[in-house]
Amino acid sequence: MYRPEIKVLDCTIRDGGLINNWQFTDQFVQNVFTACEVSGIDYVEIGYKSSAGMFSKDVVGKWKFCHEEDLKKLIGKKKGKIKLSAMADIGRINYEDIPQAKDSALDMIRVACYVKEIDKAIDLVKHITDKGYETTINIMAVSQAKDPELNEALQQIGEECKTKAVYVVDSFGSMYSEQIHYLVDKYKKYLNPKGIEVGIHAHNNLQLGFANTIEAIIKGANFMDATINGIGRGAGNCPLELLLGFLKNPKFNIVPILKILQEDFLELRKEIEWGYIIPYVITGILNEHPRSAIKLRESADKDKYAEFYQSLIEDIKV
Amino acid sequence: MYRPEIKVLDCTIRDGGLINNWQFTDQFVQNVFTACEVSGIDYVEIGYKSSAGMFSKDVVGKWKFCHEEDLKKLIGKKKGKIKLSAMADIGRINYEDIPQAKDSALDMIRVACYVKEIDKAIDLVKHITDKGYETTINIMAVSQAKDPELNEALQQIGEECKTKAVYVVDSFGSMYSEQIHYLVDKYKKYLNPKGIEVGIHAHNNLQLGFANTIEAIIKGANFMDATINGIGRGAGNCPLELLLGFLKNPKFNIVPILKILQEDFLELRKEIEWGYIIPYVITGILNEHPRSAIKLRESADKDKYAEFYQSLIEDIKV
Repeated sequence: MYRPEIKVLDCTIRDGGLINNWQFTDQFVQNVFTACEVSGIDYVEIGYKSSAGMFSKDVVGKWKFCHEEDLKKLIGKKKGKIKLSAMADIGRINYEDIPQAKDSALDMIRVACYVKEIDKAIDLVKHITDKGYETTINIMAVSQAKDPELNEALQQIGEECKTKAVYVVDSFGSMYSEQIHYLVDKYKKYLNPKGIEVGIHAHNNLQLGFANTIEAIIKGANFMDATINGIGRGAGNCPLELLLGFLKNPKFNIVPILKILQEDFLELRKEIEWGYIIPYVITGILNEHPRSAIKLRESADKDKYAEFYQSLIEDIKV
Repeated sequence: MYRPEIKVLDCTIRDGGLINNWQFTDQFVQNVFTACEVSGIDYVEIGYKSSAGMFSKDVVGKWKFCHEEDLKKLIGKKKGKIKLSAMADIGRINYEDIPQAKDSALDMIRVACYVKEIDKAIDLVKHITDKGYETTINIMAVSQAKDPELNEALQQIGEECKTKAVYVVDSFGSMYSEQIHYLVDKYKKYLNPKGIEVGIHAHNNLQLGFANTIEAIIKGANFMDATINGIGRGAGNCPLELLLGFLKNPKFNIVPILKILQEDFLELRKEIEWGYIIPYVITGILNEHPRSAIKLRESADKDKYAEFYQSLIEDIKV
């Protein structure tokens, strides 16, 4: 028996855009949106909601901003059941640049934050909620968070705001099933009594993105992030096609995702890189931010795995 | 605290050879052997033990036979702690072609069989044991085995032969953690009281090869198969580098594996194909032998994922 509460959020464009600064063609983004819609995905996260002055338009594409006119062009005149989401980074969006939900194409705004930023996140969530949006809080890099601080943050969320879900975010792709179990149990304990769901956003450094998403489901998480072909910065994310192959809810249909894999993603893979690449494995094993691996991959030493590993080990010792 | 009972078996050449009929260069095989030895791997499985007439030497390379002279050349004069293994397929090896263990470079011979072949497997294992080798039994395709037959086979093994370990083999790469837990528990119940360990050989169709190996470890399996870079037919296997990154026993050293990844596997990947490729995902989701996906990948339709999926669904209906 499937669990109807389970919601799938596709963040192909938002997370994949971290690789190429959201320089996707309009057609590609349209195809992703349509494939998700037809597949029965619950939410599609199309980018970041940022204020216009925060980033240079010469560097980043339109989905770093998610301006209303772009969103409206994307979804067209009639939108089906699928809900549209954007992510907000703390400090990158001025409150006055967020329209009322009734005037926006967005249904949900997700707030990404570190544990230490929880007060700012809650403040932003309250503001967004007041404007009529659904929200979630995505607590990043929990694999390095201290337990007492995390507990306090979760308690505070439960007491101070009405958000839809709080995500366990394995930013470094370093967590094993035991850690996922531990964290989902913890989140549930603080949040479920307040009517807040638990979500999972898993990175794939150790080829555990999908496995950890399943483990979170087994433990009772109901919001699942995934991306088509597992696209995402570095090692990427939980692949949507695997998640749809696992979920039993008949509303999901894997075929439109298989189609876009063959029609759009084979080409994209020739242009940009993500997936099972050893330097990202190494930062995952060491529970580190992938930035050193990203830098390595841009250098002439991109395949010097052993030397890279040893240099990180030396760094840790200091 | 690590579990010293855990044994890692590298089957890079044996399983990887299923892709290219063991047409590896001698230097490559030597490098794999040496990397495993220096990394502290417990066993390296270098190929199949087959009788000379069973396959054409024009088609398959020497590691389909594992003749003694080739093995002895490989290991050289002084072998370290690492043990050498070969796999035997039922009906492909004449008993008289297996030398006494004291005259062989092999330490272990593993017998692969389907549940229905268990009598033949036990007979072969007894013979091999009598000749002085370590043995294991690798029961293939258990994801399609019926419970009563599997139970009977496990009971029979426990009663009739002294083998080192019996493997849960996820031949189709279709199992999720719950099935792994269920099977490892079952194998343990029948086998541990007889002094027989449980092993895991996981395929990677659903990116769960490593995850399922961890789940088997958590449940008490002590024999782990893996291959460098996850090489293996179709989607491949549990990547050895991930397993070594997970295991805490200080005898393991990941660096020689990282070195061979950069020095030999980048090149090999340009020549032969394995890994996260959608047709193998599809056979995994459908719990089917990957042969249809292998055939598709050799055809002009190799990237017609949606059509392939729909054709298999139609086949199932019949």
